[in-house]
Amino acid sequence: MPAPALILASASPSRRQLLASAGFVFEVEPSGVDEDEVKRSLLGERAAPQAIAETLAELKARRVSARHPSAMVIGADSTLACNGRQFDKPPTLAAAREQLLALAGQTHDLCSSVVVARAGVRLWHHNEQARLTMRPFSDSFVDTYLARAGEAVKTSVGAYQLEGLGAHLFSRVDGDYFTILGLPLLPLLSFLADHGVGLESAA
Amino acid sequence: MPAPALILASASPSRRQLLASAGFVFEVEPSGVDEDEVKRSLLGERAAPQAIAETLAELKARRVSARHPSAMVIGADSTLACNGRQFDKPPTLAAAREQLLALAGQTHDLCSSVVVARAGVRLWHHNEQARLTMRPFSDSFVDTYLARAGEAVKTSVGAYQLEGLGAHLFSRVDGDYFTILGLPLLPLLSFLADHGVGLESAA
Repeated sequence: MPAPALILASASPSRRQLLASAGFVFEVEPSGVDEDEVKRSLLGERAAPQAIAETLAELKARRVSARHPSAMVIGADSTLACNGRQFDKPPTLAAAREQLLALAGQTHDLCSSVVVARAGVRLWHHNEQARLTMRPFSDSFVDTYLARAGEAVKTSVGAYQLEGLGAHLFSRVDGDYFTILGLPLLPLLSFLADHGVGLESAA
Repeated sequence: MPAPALILASASPSRRQLLASAGFVFEVEPSGVDEDEVKRSLLGERAAPQAIAETLAELKARRVSARHPSAMVIGADSTLACNGRQFDKPPTLAAAREQLLALAGQTHDLCSSVVVARAGVRLWHHNEQARLTMRPFSDSFVDTYLARAGEAVKTSVGAYQLEGLGAHLFSRVDGDYFTILGLPLLPLLSFLADHGVGLESAA
């Protein structure tokens, strides 16, 4: 029996890169879920950051799965909370600047969730959190960082790429690197391997 | 005062990639230290894995620093120990196969050390450890992994690249990702920033 097709229901460049680095051949199909609308609704219900990430990851995976019922569909989402405030992907570089200055010198929690769906049904999920502490950097440091990192910061909930220039922002990182990049990779690989989508079928 | 030149005293592709991803412009100059000889000598003295990594990182940094006294020179080394056995970079794919089968289903310790030298003198060092648990995989899984990962596995003390196909080998990873790739990056960036080699000078 051939391995099922694999679809990543996310437009995130870092998630795509993680799956590609692990050797998978897969399609990318953003779900079209209105994430802002869902988030607003969940925040209105005082949902916790991890629950929001899980709900969004599941919605994205199931939405794409309904369109491709035989495929394994991966949905993922990350939320960031610091001192009671929840952060979103910054829509502009000015918003990224404000976010980074609010996070400077502080410790924040990053919650990532990954869901695998098939035939429109959630088969599996995994939630994981990391704690990150930013250095107490200055306004001019943020300006330098944004000038060099550019528009890519808008693809990340924290306006940083730990895998790139973002490493300069942090004094301490506790938690799984892949989770911080938005996709708890090791449990996902274990689940996929147990369901016929492993290294041996990944090429 | 211009920032001092930065030199990486290591031939490791993953260390080079980490520094490049962090935005630094630097030279690479392998030290020429006979690592096998030093390691044999230290093992004869029953040196601990972390002490071996630190000694080698310092030797490499100081050796290159003596040739470029005004530069900041980064030396690094990693050692791997599992159930009392210390592992080296596998010289052949057959050796990598044997190593991976010995590590399968086991938990091992990876010790990384990074040293910065200037004018032939060690200015700073940082040691860090991670614990990694491999899945209890089969011979045929290892064969598939090695066929796909190829000669690159010989550049790593554990015959794996966690940043690539090596992620399939692990059930659990505790510790800093950058440390596992061979360079405790965050403390290194902090030290360099405090000494005039930061994001603002890295371009």
